[in-house]
Amino acid sequence: MTKVGIINVTGYAGAELARLLYLHPEAQVVSVTGRSAAGKALSQVFPHLWPLDLTVTEELSDVDFAFSALPHAASAEAVAPLVRQGLPVVDISADFRLADAAEYQRWYGVEHPAPELLSQAVYGLPELHRAAVREARLVANPGCYPTGALLALAPAARAGIIQPDVVIDAKSGVSGAGRTLGLVYHYAEANESVSAYALDGHRHLPEIVQELARLWPGSPLRVTFQPHLVPMTRGILTTCYTPLADGGLPAGEGAKAAVRELYEDAYRGEPFVRVVPEPPQTKHTWGNNLCLVYPTVDVRAGRLVVVSCIDNLVKGAAGQAIQNMNLMLGFPEAAGLDQLAVYP
Amino acid sequence: MTKVGIINVTGYAGAELARLLYLHPEAQVVSVTGRSAAGKALSQVFPHLWPLDLTVTEELSDVDFAFSALPHAASAEAVAPLVRQGLPVVDISADFRLADAAEYQRWYGVEHPAPELLSQAVYGLPELHRAAVREARLVANPGCYPTGALLALAPAARAGIIQPDVVIDAKSGVSGAGRTLGLVYHYAEANESVSAYALDGHRHLPEIVQELARLWPGSPLRVTFQPHLVPMTRGILTTCYTPLADGGLPAGEGAKAAVRELYEDAYRGEPFVRVVPEPPQTKHTWGNNLCLVYPTVDVRAGRLVVVSCIDNLVKGAAGQAIQNMNLMLGFPEAAGLDQLAVYP
Amino acid sequence: MTKVGIINVTGYAGAELARLLYLHPEAQVVSVTGRSAAGKALSQVFPHLWPLDLTVTEELSDVDFAFSALPHAASAEAVAPLVRQGLPVVDISADFRLADAAEYQRWYGVEHPAPELLSQAVYGLPELHRAAVREARLVANPGCYPTGALLALAPAARAGIIQPDVVIDAKSGVSGAGRTLGLVYHYAEANESVSAYALDGHRHLPEIVQELARLWPGSPLRVTFQPHLVPMTRGILTTCYTPLADGGLPAGEGAKAAVRELYEDAYRGEPFVRVVPEPPQTKHTWGNNLCLVYPTVDVRAGRLVVVSCIDNLVKGAAGQAIQNMNLMLGFPEAAGLDQLAVYP
Amino acid sequence: MTKVGIINVTGYAGAELARLLYLHPEAQVVSVTGRSAAGKALSQVFPHLWPLDLTVTEELSDVDFAFSALPHAASAEAVAPLVRQGLPVVDISADFRLADAAEYQRWYGVEHPAPELLSQAVYGLPELHRAAVREARLVANPGCYPTGALLALAPAARAGIIQPDVVIDAKSGVSGAGRTLGLVYHYAEANESVSAYALDGHRHLPEIVQELARLWPGSPLRVTFQPHLVPMTRGILTTCYTPLADGGLPAGEGAKAAVRELYEDAYRGEPFVRVVPEPPQTKHTWGNNLCLVYPTVDVRAGRLVVVSCIDNLVKGAAGQAIQNMNLMLGFPEAAGLDQLAVYP
Repeated sequence: MTKVGIINVTGYAGAELARLLYLHPEAQVVSVTGRSAAGKALSQVFPHLWPLDLTVTEELSDVDFAFSALPHAASAEAVAPLVRQGLPVVDISADFRLADAAEYQRWYGVEHPAPELLSQAVYGLPELHRAAVREARLVANPGCYPTGALLALAPAARAGIIQPDVVIDAKSGVSGAGRTLGLVYHYAEANESVSAYALDGHRHLPEIVQELARLWPGSPLRVTFQPHLVPMTRGILTTCYTPLADGGLPAGEGAKAAVRELYEDAYRGEPFVRVVPEPPQTKHTWGNNLCLVYPTVDVRAGRLVVVSCIDNLVKGAAGQAIQNMNLMLGFPEAAGLDQLAVYP
Repeated sequence: MTKVGIINVTGYAGAELARLLYLHPEAQVVSVTGRSAAGKALSQVFPHLWPLDLTVTEELSDVDFAFSALPHAASAEAVAPLVRQGLPVVDISADFRLADAAEYQRWYGVEHPAPELLSQAVYGLPELHRAAVREARLVANPGCYPTGALLALAPAARAGIIQPDVVIDAKSGVSGAGRTLGLVYHYAEANESVSAYALDGHRHLPEIVQELARLWPGSPLRVTFQPHLVPMTRGILTTCYTPLADGGLPAGEGAKAAVRELYEDAYRGEPFVRVVPEPPQTKHTWGNNLCLVYPTVDVRAGRLVVVSCIDNLVKGAAGQAIQNMNLMLGFPEAAGLDQLAVYP
Repeated sequence: MTKVGIINVTGYAGAELARLLYLHPEAQVVSVTGRSAAGKALSQVFPHLWPLDLTVTEELSDVDFAFSALPHAASAEAVAPLVRQGLPVVDISADFRLADAAEYQRWYGVEHPAPELLSQAVYGLPELHRAAVREARLVANPGCYPTGALLALAPAARAGIIQPDVVIDAKSGVSGAGRTLGLVYHYAEANESVSAYALDGHRHLPEIVQELARLWPGSPLRVTFQPHLVPMTRGILTTCYTPLADGGLPAGEGAKAAVRELYEDAYRGEPFVRVVPEPPQTKHTWGNNLCLVYPTVDVRAGRLVVVSCIDNLVKGAAGQAIQNMNLMLGFPEAAGLDQLAVYP
Repeated sequence: MTKVGIINVTGYAGAELARLLYLHPEAQVVSVTGRSAAGKALSQVFPHLWPLDLTVTEELSDVDFAFSALPHAASAEAVAPLVRQGLPVVDISADFRLADAAEYQRWYGVEHPAPELLSQAVYGLPELHRAAVREARLVANPGCYPTGALLALAPAARAGIIQPDVVIDAKSGVSGAGRTLGLVYHYAEANESVSAYALDGHRHLPEIVQELARLWPGSPLRVTFQPHLVPMTRGILTTCYTPLADGGLPAGEGAKAAVRELYEDAYRGEPFVRVVPEPPQTKHTWGNNLCLVYPTVDVRAGRLVVVSCIDNLVKGAAGQAIQNMNLMLGFPEAAGLDQLAVYP
């Protein structure tokens, strides 16, 4: 068994890593850290992790592989020495997602703590960068919103059937904001309410733009990404709207079948993307690593509309991180990720 | 006191009419109908309406004003004879919203039951058609989605600052689907889940298009309207995205203040529309007749983004119906509609 | 109009006072305090209170009546000088509920800040102490749990049909815990979960015991009160279980009708207690001041079972406070409290 | 692999069986039935079960083991011929839980369809009847409420530390009511509301009484069982209250540690019962087969208070059914049941 460590196990992504790895056939969590909870039993912090006999410590020890679930900046600081020692790492924070350190500083407001590592970091969306992930020692796990948005848009962008003018309207459950307290996430305030936030620009926008630009080289991209908070614990539903490019698809109703076929071809064989025949619910992914994608065309308006669903803590965080680890270590890509969604 | 009747009080819009009218200073509900519940006390059907001492009957009797909360087609059939007798009516169904009977038939799949009344029906969005509502005998109460979308878009459309290329992404609570049972609205299935629906076209689309076209004569409109179901009881949050027209607004960040000022001017003095300084939550309208509007600009993408919130059962149905009644009967427009939102 | 002040308007009870008083025909809020928000507009803190043109200040000024919605201890300190100046006050905190200062210290862990006022304070459950409330200058507004429990038990206790051996199992929405942040009330943790808390004794227990003892003088009371947190914003449902006293009710099924009649007699004419014919839902009281009571008998086990529902922020806090103010100032008892519950 | 069939896979218990068995190392679902959905792919009915390549049929075929998730009466009719043919069966319905056919008829209102099988049926609560389950060919899977209540009470009842006078107050999520539509389970009505139901007696009461009587022979039992509906999808929290028997426990605070030790001893080695050090949340069991038990004493009132949590669809239905199958077929008891709870 590969010995795995989780840095900052006390947030939701960290806890979810521990939950999923408990059933992993080739990896075992042997060390977990967390500043505020250091010295406590993990099962005291998270009773649902009761069979994991681990004590939260300040530093990792004796691991062959590390996940970092720290906040940005802190994560790069913690991860950089490990990477330099040659430890393979998946970083769930935003620190190694943007290739450009200046762009990082613009959006995160701090100087990048380890810019020299950016060139070796791979953006860990396996459906776009599988080969590179396999070779990587440092993988930047994508943000939850970019995961949903990019999987919804990639086949159309690659195929050139849409104009580079994209509206991404995302609806996220509250766990996406993490375990840190805030009035906005206080039950009585968040419950029975929907709101839009980050109307001046969300930090996941540059990540989406960077990856769309790779798919769509040369195009001047016009991307609006608008996140919303909805009263549920887990899940992101992303609805993407893009005008069709001229001549890319058959006219009229035939466009729907054509775009569907395009997506099915693009994702054939993918273990964690399913092109579904009916509009999906986020709940169909509760607790599991799938991304469900439903592409269609608004024929009246000449617009591609794609809906995707993920569990923000799994395919949007911990599950995808394990998928990346599996690729990096040569395990079967789906190892440890075969639990079905819990429904209803 | 004006004697008011409610046709089909047994759905949510009907019950909400009864709740709000209980405190109306100039009107009193004296007759309520409902086929399945005929003969029952209203308080048996809806215990929260306990002080209304009314029995559900099959037909209205002795009223000076009628609301119909029947489903489409049935509503026009019930309402037509009343209108012909000269009774002023607000119809909450879709039957008199579309001016064109052919368009009605296309979307609702039935021949219009009273096409000869269409020309006298007024689309009852007071913020757009107040003068006409005052003169009307038959008011078609707008759909819940069109209310949120049109109030979000009208000032920009009128001012010509946007291109006629609109994406409307709406998120509705479950009560919007009414009291009729369905697996999609079964608690265990709807809870903790978001989904998109009606991807082939929702019946509120032609209504939105009709009214936008009135605001924007001559433009070839390209409108995508996509509704979503979110796990809450009440509320619609609508996010609208439209490319800016050239030269309509100052460049750069100044566009935000300019669009805000435009909206504040447009809605100055409106009793039920507030242009709010922070992105609103649907919960800020729970149980009351406000529409909250937050306009801004995505400066990077050159796009207007407007968020609006309403309670779908109040400004999106019963409250707006009472606002229309107030106008038709010469009462103060806000009579009976002064309860604040229940928060949290 | 009587000029009213609210001390600590920034919590949920304070905000609810402001909401309800907005429609009060004889009283007007003219001054509101709140330490952390001092200097802000009230509508900035609570957007749903937008039409109240008030600035949050540090001290009340120029009021004829005051409500305190401060936490315990702080409340007595703030209220004592006002009472000494002769201002009539309703204190929503626990400070003046327990007649015995030692008992107060035992449960709240602090010395009582104004024990000399305890003798003049009246426990403001109008259904039990209406005459005294009318004469009082200082009313201690009951806790939310005691309100639900006492209204469920009082008629049976008074009538002597039960043994003084009571289990009170209460289920509360999350707003009962207030606006202070905590992991237990974080949306992702509180949602989709029920838990029992305060298993070593909740501070509302001595209040329940004190009032039951007044109803049941001489009996050695054996009371277990167990609160639970349920995933909803508002509402308390209380289920009370008590063995029947011998000979108090007819044997067999007849006991059900007899206990029902007893309760109907006890609450006849009460404006805010309804003995309902079917088991109620908390939602039937959402936003309004009713307590719904459903008494029955478990004939097999010889036990009285009474279910009550209230909105914890209305009849359990702000609404009852206004009811008390109405009595103290000679207004109609229901003034300002006639809004129906918002359902669904 | 043992070939397993699920009769009536289209309800929640059936779907949950399919979900959990997907990861079972020794059993494979090969045949699933469901009248209304016959002919459809299982993944069409339940998209989260997408990798199970099964078609819903009218009859089971070629199985070594069967689960029935039919409603009562229908289940006995379907199961009886299978049992007679010698197929081992776990019946999730109520049909074989009550040993006495007359008692069955009294509570379920129909004559028992196969009374001659009652004597061979074993009540499948492994923690009480493990040895018998191992030998059984027909196991009656316990109801969800009895599972939570009996595991909470069994150690105390066996040890004789309580009086046979029990109040069981249970709070269940809405999935317990199944997939059949009803206004009570309509999202808009069930959400944000708690209610008590079945105040004249719930069908799970005789089952609880039967099993308590087995633990407590000779005592005249006085049991009140009161279920409540709470707005969440999964989970049952059960709070049990019982007066302490004289001399059973040390006096004063020492009683708490003593009762805790008693429970820890009773459940030592049980794979699916955990005596937890802090009051549990239902969410700690979301999707998994644990029952969490927290015993304590209300020292003031001299009452045992025990709180238990289960997922009603897992330990309360499908998970326990698989645990029973494992015992019947000689598999490790926890086979296929090792997924941790999904939290938050």
